Amino acid sequence: MDPTRAFVRSVKRVVVKVGTAVVTRSDGRLALGRLGALCEQLKELNNRGYEVILVTSGAVGLGKQRLRYRRLANSSFSDLQNPQYELDGKACAAVGQSSLMALYDIMFSQLDVTSSQLLVNDGFFRDADFRKQLTDTVHSLLDLRVIPIFNENDAVSTRKAPYEDSSGIFWDNDSLAGLLALELKADLLVLLSDVEGLYSGPPSDPKSKLIHTYVKEKHHSKITFGDKSRLGRGGMTAKVNAAVCAAYSGTPVIITSGYTNDNIMRVLQGERIGTVFHKDAHLWTSIKEITAHEMAVAARDSSRRLQNLKSEDRKKILLDVAAAIEKNESEIRIENAADVADAEEAGYERSLISRLTLRPEKIASLVKSVRNLADMVEPIGQILKRTELADKLTLEKISCPLGVLLVIFESRPDALVQIAALAIRSGNGLLLKGGKEAKRSNAVLHKVITSAIPDTVGGKLIGLVTSREAIPDLLKLDDVIDLVIPRGSNSLVSQIKDTTKIPVLGHADGICHVYVDKAANINVAKQIARDAKTDYPAACNAMETLLVHQDLSGNGGLDELIAELKRAGVQLYGGPRASALLKIAETKSFHLEYSSLACTIEIVDDVFAAIDHIHHHGSSHTDCIVTEDSEVAETFLRQVDSAAVFHNASTRFCDGARFGLGAEVGISTSRIHARGPVGVEGLLTNRWVLRGNGQIVDGDRNVTYTHKQLPVVA
Amino acid sequence: MDPTRAFVRSVKRVVVKVGTAVVTRSDGRLALGRLGALCEQLKELNNRGYEVILVTSGAVGLGKQRLRYRRLANSSFSDLQNPQYELDGKACAAVGQSSLMALYDIMFSQLDVTSSQLLVNDGFFRDADFRKQLTDTVHSLLDLRVIPIFNENDAVSTRKAPYEDSSGIFWDNDSLAGLLALELKADLLVLLSDVEGLYSGPPSDPKSKLIHTYVKEKHHSKITFGDKSRLGRGGMTAKVNAAVCAAYSGTPVIITSGYTNDNIMRVLQGERIGTVFHKDAHLWTSIKEITAHEMAVAARDSSRRLQNLKSEDRKKILLDVAAAIEKNESEIRIENAADVADAEEAGYERSLISRLTLRPEKIASLVKSVRNLADMVEPIGQILKRTELADKLTLEKISCPLGVLLVIFESRPDALVQIAALAIRSGNGLLLKGGKEAKRSNAVLHKVITSAIPDTVGGKLIGLVTSREAIPDLLKLDDVIDLVIPRGSNSLVSQIKDTTKIPVLGHADGICHVYVDKAANINVAKQIARDAKTDYPAACNAMETLLVHQDLSGNGGLDELIAELKRAGVQLYGGPRASALLKIAETKSFHLEYSSLACTIEIVDDVFAAIDHIHHHGSSHTDCIVTEDSEVAETFLRQVDSAAVFHNASTRFCDGARFGLGAEVGISTSRIHARGPVGVEGLLTNRWVLRGNGQIVDGDRNVTYTHKQLPVVA
Repeated sequence: MDPTRAFVRSVKRVVVKVGTAVVTRSDGRLALGRLGALCEQLKELNNRGYEVILVTSGAVGLGKQRLRYRRLANSSFSDLQNPQYELDGKACAAVGQSSLMALYDIMFSQLDVTSSQLLVNDGFFRDADFRKQLTDTVHSLLDLRVIPIFNENDAVSTRKAPYEDSSGIFWDNDSLAGLLALELKADLLVLLSDVEGLYSGPPSDPKSKLIHTYVKEKHHSKITFGDKSRLGRGGMTAKVNAAVCAAYSGTPVIITSGYTNDNIMRVLQGERIGTVFHKDAHLWTSIKEITAHEMAVAARDSSRRLQNLKSEDRKKILLDVAAAIEKNESEIRIENAADVADAEEAGYERSLISRLTLRPEKIASLVKSVRNLADMVEPIGQILKRTELADKLTLEKISCPLGVLLVIFESRPDALVQIAALAIRSGNGLLLKGGKEAKRSNAVLHKVITSAIPDTVGGKLIGLVTSREAIPDLLKLDDVIDLVIPRGSNSLVSQIKDTTKIPVLGHADGICHVYVDKAANINVAKQIARDAKTDYPAACNAMETLLVHQDLSGNGGLDELIAELKRAGVQLYGGPRASALLKIAETKSFHLEYSSLACTIEIVDDVFAAIDHIHHHGSSHTDCIVTEDSEVAETFLRQVDSAAVFHNASTRFCDGARFGLGAEVGISTSRIHARGPVGVEGLLTNRWVLRGNGQIVDGDRNVTYTHKQLPVVA
Repeated sequence: MDPTRAFVRSVKRVVVKVGTAVVTRSDGRLALGRLGALCEQLKELNNRGYEVILVTSGAVGLGKQRLRYRRLANSSFSDLQNPQYELDGKACAAVGQSSLMALYDIMFSQLDVTSSQLLVNDGFFRDADFRKQLTDTVHSLLDLRVIPIFNENDAVSTRKAPYEDSSGIFWDNDSLAGLLALELKADLLVLLSDVEGLYSGPPSDPKSKLIHTYVKEKHHSKITFGDKSRLGRGGMTAKVNAAVCAAYSGTPVIITSGYTNDNIMRVLQGERIGTVFHKDAHLWTSIKEITAHEMAVAARDSSRRLQNLKSEDRKKILLDVAAAIEKNESEIRIENAADVADAEEAGYERSLISRLTLRPEKIASLVKSVRNLADMVEPIGQILKRTELADKLTLEKISCPLGVLLVIFESRPDALVQIAALAIRSGNGLLLKGGKEAKRSNAVLHKVITSAIPDTVGGKLIGLVTSREAIPDLLKLDDVIDLVIPRGSNSLVSQIKDTTKIPVLGHADGICHVYVDKAANINVAKQIARDAKTDYPAACNAMETLLVHQDLSGNGGLDELIAELKRAGVQLYGGPRASALLKIAETKSFHLEYSSLACTIEIVDDVFAAIDHIHHHGSSHTDCIVTEDSEVAETFLRQVDSAAVFHNASTRFCDGARFGLGAEVGISTSRIHARGPVGVEGLLTNRWVLRGNGQIVDGDRNVTYTHKQLPVVA
């Protein structure tokens, strides 16, 4: 649950105010679909034990429509030729109110809910007896689980200019709802509008952001309310005034859209929708909606300064980071120990705790890897290609940083150090979101690393995002974040891919195959299959499917392979052929990532059948052939269309460190940009720099293109 | 309008059947929101002059719910302890029917629509008098714009096992609706269900595709209907049977979801939603839903065969393509002339007609560019990097094709040749969608090119998509298409980016800047500014903003620049400083692509202000500095974070052909993968190939990593 919505847990009594823009369609007719859905939702709330009080608008508009038809029916032809006088507002209210209540009554009764009508006027509230009576009546109704429906008694109201009358107690249904919420001691007031909530500017402007939490001190001066700025069509000024008034008197308020049929329920489940008004909002530190954008912009600014440093200055930052980690090792270990203790207390799995723990050797190896990155050839500004386009017109293709990366990783705090070092080396800004198990370790590592970044660049080069709720906001920032790298479960990666327009680099599945050919050295096959499955069964580069040439089932090779895997504790599931032959359970699917000591085994006719199987069922991650026949091996290496294809080597080698890339941010099964283990190179893009002395294109009439490749000199 | 939905244009009388799953929620309660929205929609249809007949389910369920409460209210405590008998279905129907009709009545009357109840039984339809009477009554109601609401008179029906009684005339509300559609000579029957339509498999299976057009011959045998396969919860078998029966008797049927509130309206506007049943469906050639996927899969298969050819064989294909274009030049010109004649008759702009026309010189230059691509160094299988990981364990990073490209381009048919040649050179499969103005030119070019592709690869390597309606289907195929390249208007590119999960390579905006520094040679500045704006004002690499150092306003340089642009017919708009100084109209925004003979001009303090302006308002496409001060130039070249940055050369040089890339598929302002003009290289990715002799990882205990860079030998 979002911390800014945690208070909803204790809500029992809720006032729901539904505005004219929700009740009525843009063409003036009643929005029956939305009204029906509202009744269904209130019934559900009633069922779940909430005490529901409804304040409804819409009667005047509805009455106006009905009277217009009535007048038409009563008109003679000559009447219709005369100018039409305006319909009387009070008459409309009188007609509309009974019509609207009849509709609510039949709708609620279809749902076996009883509703009741309560019409009140401004002046009544000056009278203490009235207020007492109102409270008693409402309590009686709520005890009977009847839904009270309030409206201003417009038909007999004598008020003229509501907003100018400073003696008014309420001015409209928004302020009536606020007043009732206080009088009836409601725990929450929900104002349903036609926009998602309060925006930082006109909702039509793409730069306007929904304000999740209203803070009086921060927002009241910044946002221009009122009709001119039109922050939503539905009288947002009135809503904000009513909301501020109710919230600071003790009843929290949420403004949200009445167009989405389940928004009240979502509000009560603590989802981060709409705009919340709460008297303690200024104390909440987790007001993220602006911070996420600010963090990303700050990271980009810092990264541009980092790029402008001399190569040796960038190298020095990495050396300083390494030294800072060494110097602060004891503090890092204390914080890490606290995380580990918490994780043990929470009963996490051993494997997770092991990944979480920063042992001295691990810290030493991290420091070493940062120094290795410092020593690598400067990757930024490398001239990748030089071409003379024409006389004195020279084009260079130059490597440069991508911009700002968002990396979402799980429980390993060492990943933070590796990724941060890679970002610095590649000149990129970085936003990091780690797992909550490693909260304290991540915080201290982030502090140590950013403190080593000089002020000329700024520690905001690397931002640490601490709240899970900030992720959806970050994923919307396709204008300032250039690449998202999720390191975690398949479902995390898929979910992120589905919800962002920012390019995502990663792998959703790691369905790796080992194909054992008929010409395999069976001992090599045994050790590769065992290592590929058992070295780290949960890794994405672990083998999930073992494909075996059919000839091996006749010569004992298959049996040896199976015995080897069983000895290593691997549970085997067969494809149709293997399960029939070996009498083992059949796998549910060939596209299955066990991530444990289990794998699929299947018999195939030959290398081509193996390749087809891999193309059909694999995930284009890492696939391996074991054979002594180099021609067959080359066919496999050439034809298998995966990020990594191996001959006689374990799939577990597919890894940035083992590949000599220094470190990796992850393994990509995307086909564009970077594929396979992604190190510094995958975090770079390029720019084209052209130097001339005044050349113009002019219809290509005067330029003589030479297109001569020039040597790439630094 | 989709051609498979064109028949809806002539629809006047429509029968709408709303199923129990639409009327009722999953918890058994009435779905008031959906019912209300249905009434609003039917009112709208009524308003627009459609004759609407409703067939509604839901009465039995509603009656059951009401009777359950009724029984509870009448029970004593001991009653409640006895086992509860099943409620009588007929009684439920009787109670539910009046309750449901009362609800429709009040809902419709709120919308000023009159509705009426018509209860019919199976046997009635045997009686010709009844059928005549029914038709007369319905006609009278429709003439009065009253909505007839039909239901089976379940309460007094004597039928037992409806589906087993072969003498039945209708069996349920689906077949009743079909029967009524025929009896009442409706032009369309809409069956509202709880799924989008008929699927090729269980809707929960991601591989199931919505069938847009049902073809009896094609689908009836393939799809297993009935409860077991559960193609939708809402009795899809009954719906398909009723739909087939009605459609083949002359009333077209569309099955669509009743959960989306405007689906009936969308159906009547000819949108391609739901599944259509039409007696002529087998004659329609544009049944694209399976073809799009099949085309992409065929292109991928062909591309894999293309990759497996020897380099000289791939080269030969390009030479054959060039020869085929030469040989068929007269046919190509005839088809192109027909397109041009049509475009002239349709009154298209001169510039479009000029882009459309394939003059002999253009064809010759296309042929030459294909031959140039044939002659380029083999791009596939290039070893980009070689590393010895450990003794006898060698890693290679090798270039390889991306896979399948979808290129959407506008009116230039020469683009088809260029893109096809690039795809063949880079070993990729290709799906092409051209503009309709170039329909015949594209068709003949596609025929000529694919006829030159040998059978070992297959002409399906390059698919030509001819229907605009196929694009949304193609954009969903993220499992078989690897990259989308839209070449066209900003809105096309943005729209595609918003609607697909496939990576998109392209530029949405081309806001290019020329910055004239105080140390500029003013003659160079004049010719570059003029060329950058006027050489081709609609091109994405044309200048949109001219930034001028403030010192030039004092020394006459600014005046010279302005005079030069005005002489060339350029309309100038100023930023705040320039418009105040020069008394010219102020631009609405700095982020504005004129695409015409107009540009923005603004005064800036110095090169740093220019860089800030470009970062703030530009689109990271192509930006240029004009200066004789090489230090200032290098600052600009280093700091401006755009795909292309130029010194003393026109922005118009940013182009694949001018950059010497052979040809281009477009210019990318994405930061990942390819940036700037994209030629063959941008259509490649890479694979990692590892060759060992049995090495395993085994916790990295036994491998001694050497990570030695080896020379890259071919």
